[in-house]
Amino acid sequence: MRAIRIGLLGCGTVGTGVLRLLRENAALIQGRLGGEVVVRRVLAKDSSKPRPDVDASLLTFDPEAVLGDPEIDVVIEVIGGEEPAGSFVRRALSQGKPVVTANKALLAARGHELFEIAEKKGADLYFEAAVAGSIPVIRTLREALAAERVTAVVGIVNGTSNFVLTRMAEDGLPFDDAVRLAQAKGFAEADPSLDVGGHDAAHKLAILAMLAFGARVDLGRVHVEGIESLAALDVAMARRFGYVVKSLAIGRDHGDALELRVHPTLVPADHVVAGVRDQYNAVYLEGPALGSLLLSGHGAGSLPTAVSVVSDLVDLARNLFGGSAGRVPARAAPSEALRERPIRSMDDVSSRYYLRVTCEDHPRTLARITDALGSHEVSVDQLVQEPRAGGGGVHVVMTTRVVREKNVRSAVAEIDALKVVSEPSRLLRIDLWE
Amino acid sequence: MRAIRIGLLGCGTVGTGVLRLLRENAALIQGRLGGEVVVRRVLAKDSSKPRPDVDASLLTFDPEAVLGDPEIDVVIEVIGGEEPAGSFVRRALSQGKPVVTANKALLAARGHELFEIAEKKGADLYFEAAVAGSIPVIRTLREALAAERVTAVVGIVNGTSNFVLTRMAEDGLPFDDAVRLAQAKGFAEADPSLDVGGHDAAHKLAILAMLAFGARVDLGRVHVEGIESLAALDVAMARRFGYVVKSLAIGRDHGDALELRVHPTLVPADHVVAGVRDQYNAVYLEGPALGSLLLSGHGAGSLPTAVSVVSDLVDLARNLFGGSAGRVPARAAPSEALRERPIRSMDDVSSRYYLRVTCEDHPRTLARITDALGSHEVSVDQLVQEPRAGGGGVHVVMTTRVVREKNVRSAVAEIDALKVVSEPSRLLRIDLWE
Repeated sequence: MRAIRIGLLGCGTVGTGVLRLLRENAALIQGRLGGEVVVRRVLAKDSSKPRPDVDASLLTFDPEAVLGDPEIDVVIEVIGGEEPAGSFVRRALSQGKPVVTANKALLAARGHELFEIAEKKGADLYFEAAVAGSIPVIRTLREALAAERVTAVVGIVNGTSNFVLTRMAEDGLPFDDAVRLAQAKGFAEADPSLDVGGHDAAHKLAILAMLAFGARVDLGRVHVEGIESLAALDVAMARRFGYVVKSLAIGRDHGDALELRVHPTLVPADHVVAGVRDQYNAVYLEGPALGSLLLSGHGAGSLPTAVSVVSDLVDLARNLFGGSAGRVPARAAPSEALRERPIRSMDDVSSRYYLRVTCEDHPRTLARITDALGSHEVSVDQLVQEPRAGGGGVHVVMTTRVVREKNVRSAVAEIDALKVVSEPSRLLRIDLWE
Repeated sequence: MRAIRIGLLGCGTVGTGVLRLLRENAALIQGRLGGEVVVRRVLAKDSSKPRPDVDASLLTFDPEAVLGDPEIDVVIEVIGGEEPAGSFVRRALSQGKPVVTANKALLAARGHELFEIAEKKGADLYFEAAVAGSIPVIRTLREALAAERVTAVVGIVNGTSNFVLTRMAEDGLPFDDAVRLAQAKGFAEADPSLDVGGHDAAHKLAILAMLAFGARVDLGRVHVEGIESLAALDVAMARRFGYVVKSLAIGRDHGDALELRVHPTLVPADHVVAGVRDQYNAVYLEGPALGSLLLSGHGAGSLPTAVSVVSDLVDLARNLFGGSAGRVPARAAPSEALRERPIRSMDDVSSRYYLRVTCEDHPRTLARITDALGSHEVSVDQLVQEPRAGGGGVHVVMTTRVVREKNVRSAVAEIDALKVVSEPSRLLRIDLWE
């Protein structure tokens, strides 16, 4: 029987999941592929760590034992981070070897360099696991929607943030307590800042935008706001207005420019995206012919991520067996069809907004606030005023109709300059309204 | 530039959508494919119908003009129904020509015959649009989950039924009024029986089970119950217990046997499947490594369906350009890996149940009902008794713990034989509980 021999770089959470899946589903995969998958070498970092699940004869601590082995057909990189993973992937591709990677940070920062080596060498670089774990969004954008002009990609692509926000909304927890709960359940790192700060989601958005919009995206151009400063009060108020707060990665193609932004966002409670709770991830796509499409599932975890890695491997094995390497361009379109695209500045984004103003309870206050809004052409949709818990003054909380961000920011600056306003107002964007 | 020449069989709703998408997204598709798609011939049925959107020079009413044309590379079949579509597809495949079809009835009834011709001739037979329109569930099962043993496929795969049930639940409409509303909105045919009767969903379940479980499924073995006899009362009572009624197509692989059934089902209101409303479709998948995955979007309509048809076409074009026809087995696994699988009888299915008994309001009634349940080992979870609207007697409504269907049916037969019970009791299955 024909066989495909793999070298596995990395033996952490995802790597051990890959080995386990290859072991447990060996017969199934062999039946579907009509060929065998043989693990030839596994690179680990820490030689002092016991690895009872890994065949000791396969284990190595020398990258050269994988990268220099001519008998290896496919390299799987699940180390993560830019280096040394980037050099390893580059080396494999330069030898014309296909690579499967789960490394979003590497692809977001240096993807185009690597994709171009891959294209030149006729080696496939597959990466389903790099965005939203087990959710097949890469294949969907690259193949299932090959015929469609995707106009919007909206993702819940960071499970830590989604878990924290869900517990804030459903249990009324403050941010810090929700983070501690996430850590206790293994859904957050000891240092959660890459996740709750929105940067991990920005990496994934850059990859999704490349596939969806045929764009070369400079990661630095993604607008990023985390959820760290989100108050339980605003989560609760949003709920009263009929919204759920989600950390969304939003990409939109307006033709003349793209919008690329990651930030806490109010989503209507009856929208299908609002129902994606706890550590689950989702990607919501729109296109003029398609309408909308939601994909939702586990965005992380050893085995869910391994499903995507090993399914990519099966795809590459089919290309090797059939001599069809490079059959589908890794970036959904060949190099020459990808374009640099202008990114719309946040000032020019149009949205609906949620605004909380905390101020003294004074007969003229409300009029001054609404005057400031009106003078910048901000129309109010709903408005609630209520006493501030455990202190003087009131919260004036409102949602707006669609307006340019520049206008609403000018209005808020004017409001915050009022003497009666006792703390900086809180402005949040609303999205996915009907 | 290299080109792929297509012959389109069928010029109805889907066919005109395919032509429109090929026209509107021509540059985009050409960029991604690195090749041109040329429509060479369009077969229509009714020569008296004006077709302003179709180039008259391409139009034909003679199937031979498409099937006998050696210049056509790919045949697209969007006629629907078993014949003449089946003969046309057979003829094309027998000539070694790849085919894209959106025809679930044909595949459910004669798929294996056609897939085997395709396999023998080395021609691809692709069918993403045959199940759940724009939702890429075929690719997901065949490619994205190539590494996973899928254990459950649960689908909302009939948009008409889902629309009717959503309006019954949210507007309190009786079944007949909800069907009339669906017809007025274009979501139901003049004769909606294939849809609301569950048979269309059974066709799709047979296809999904083939891909998910590697099974040759005899369509006659799918247990089918429609939603026609569902009372508004039961939809409302389900809601009070925290459930939404959905028409689900359920496939489960228990290792020793498969479950294959289509019927109205109570789903917990906070489950992600319960949030799939109106005419939307969804497929929910489970596997031991994957956890769960939900795909949701438009299951019908001219352009959403065309997205799947034309994306299949792009895939086939890549196989033709790259000489990689047959690269992925159409049924997810090659012929020799597919097996006949025993189907579990409904008597042996285990589930939770919803039961409504309508009876006289008599001091001993409740004891008799619960006695009958207890003697068949049916445990009650929740129970509510309330007066019957506009008449004597009461409804006793309950949900059960997990029990074999045979037991609950025996208990219901015993209950319905009681003199105090005034009409046949209503039994519904519950699924997707946590």
